[in-house]
This record gives sequence, structure tokens and C-alpha cells, in this order.
Amino acid sequence: MRRIVLVSAAVVILSGVVTFTTSAAGDVDGEAVPVSGVNIPLGYRDWPLISVAHEEGTLSDLRAILGNDVAIKAAREGKRPFPDGTIIARIAWSYDPLEESSQAFGHPQSFVAGPPKNGVQFMVKDSIKYASTGGWGFAQFDEGKPADEAMQRTCFPCHSAVKARDFVFNRYAP
Amino acid sequence: MRRIVLVSAAVVILSGVVTFTTSAAGDVDGEAVPVSGVNIPLGYRDWPLISVAHEEGTLSDLRAILGNDVAIKAAREGKRPFPDGTIIARIAWSYDPLEESSQAFGHPQSFVAGPPKNGVQFMVKDSIKYASTGGWGFAQFDEGKPADEAMQRTCFPCHSAVKARDFVFNRYAP
Repeated sequence: MRRIVLVSAAVVILSGVVTFTTSAAGDVDGEAVPVSGVNIPLGYRDWPLISVAHEEGTLSDLRAILGNDVAIKAAREGKRPFPDGTIIARIAWSYDPLEESSQAFGHPQSFVAGPPKNGVQFMVKDSIKYASTGGWGFAQFDEGKPADEAMQRTCFPCHSAVKARDFVFNRYAP
Repeated sequence: MRRIVLVSAAVVILSGVVTFTTSAAGDVDGEAVPVSGVNIPLGYRDWPLISVAHEEGTLSDLRAILGNDVAIKAAREGKRPFPDGTIIARIAWSYDPLEESSQAFGHPQSFVAGPPKNGVQFMVKDSIKYASTGGWGFAQFDEGKPADEAMQRTCFPCHSAVKARDFVFNRYAP
């Protein structure tokens, strides 16, 4: 009897600890951004790929869009609006020519990801908490730290260009 | 005693079934390519991302490099040569301007993944089986079907340009 009580107590304590350290969006890391209060989700770098893009102009990067399970499922089904619990990550790197490829092909050919650039961005869907910004909490982190409030406030106005697609620019690349 | 015997028998039978339906490279799908005999690994599309690239010239695509667990671990550690069991996948799409982004920025800005293009390619590391091609089995599939033998034989000579990097062009993008 004593052993059962001890095990039950351990389970209660552990459950409390787990609840204390995770947010509604799952396990997170570091400081939350101003405005949306979004944190960096743990393990996002290994999430599956939604799509890729190249940005020209001042951004000049190669980027990848990754998604958690909820995001991937909805993206693959072409489902809009995305369900609550969706988290989409945007990572990016400098747009660099690949020397060995130019040699192999005999002319400039390949452009690959150089060092990380333009921070890491997230969109977290919670249609109640973020009702004033289309249901999405936006977040930008530069070198792991939250970007300032002015930067955070630029996200939603720009994404409003694709309001008809639930504020998400990307489409799933099969 | 009888129950233990039945459970053991079930485990033995199930183990046999699992062994029968998987290859040394894991679960696979469809027809193997000529030359290397590589099949499409099941679930590759959801593997984590190693890196991204843009190819100009006749290829004209946006591409992503994905890796199985062995590949990701080695790539992240910058480890060369890659260990046996590494599988690297290259998927690609047409390089298309994104209309809504041009509107949001006021000038041509973003290029995104359009329809799939240039097939799907794999590199499978088995330093004994593929000793004559640097330890790698190469495979190209077009619309899910193996490309012809002539195409399969173009892979290794081109990848020889990066022999010093274990025949792999890409580098992990953190």
C-alpha cells in the first residue's frame, strides 16, 4: 500500500512540474517576444518542411518554412484557416554562390545557404488569444533573442496582404 | 507457462514479418532504380531539412535537401565521411515569382516553390555495396518512377567534384 502511495505522489509531482514548464504551444525555450508573448518552440529546427523560397532586395536570402504536426497536416491538405495549435517557423540564410558547382557545370549555377540571416520567425495560431491579429501571434528572434516591439508590430500589416489565405504566404510544396 | 509461450511465438512471427518487408535501408516504396538498386524510402518527405538551394540555368529550380536520422546527425556535426545508413534526399520545384509578395513590397521580391520539377534524387551510403562509386548508391526518380540507366550513371561523375567532402555538395544550414 505504501509503495502505491509513493508512486502516485511521484506522478502528481512530475505532472505538476511538466505543466509548470510548458506553455499551451508546447515546450519552449528562452524569452518571449513583446506583443504576442510567443517563445521559441523547442525542436523547431527538425520540423518537416512546408516550402522554400528566395528573397531578393534588401533581404537577399534563401529561406525554409517548417511546420509542427498540426501545421504540416493542414498545409498538406490545403486547409484554411489553419487550426489552433498550428506553429509555422521561417528560417533563413545568406544567398551564396556554390564554387564547386560552378566548376562542375562550367558556369555560375548553384546558390546555397550561407550563414543564418534575417532572424527566425514564428506564427502561432490561437484564434481567441490573437483575435486582433487574424488569429496569429507573430514573433521574430534575432540570434535567439526577441526582436524589439517595433519590429514585432510590422508582421501583421505585411501578412494582411494574404488575409484571404489566412495570412500565410506559403503553400505546401509536395 | 502457456501464455508465455504464446506471447513468445507471436513476437517471433511478428519479427519475421517485419524483417521480410523492410530492406537494409529501411521501409521502401515502389520500383528500384537500375545501377544502384535504390528504392524510394518511405516517409522521406517528412525528414528534417539539411539545406536549401536555387539552381539556375537549365535546371531553374528551388530545392531542398532532407536527411534521415543518420544523415541529420552527421550533417549537423559536420562529420565526413557520412556513416553507412545515411540517406540524403533532394526534392525540387519550379522557381516562381510570388505575386502577393511583389504587391506587399512594391517590387519583384519573392521566388517560391511552384510545381515539382527535376525529379527526386537520393544518395544512400553503403561503403561496401557501393565501393565503386565512392560508397554511395545514387538514384533519380521522375514522377515516382526510376529514371533510365543513362541518367543514373551521370550522378557519380558530377558528384566527384566534391570527392574531398565525401561526394556531398550540401552543408548543414543551422
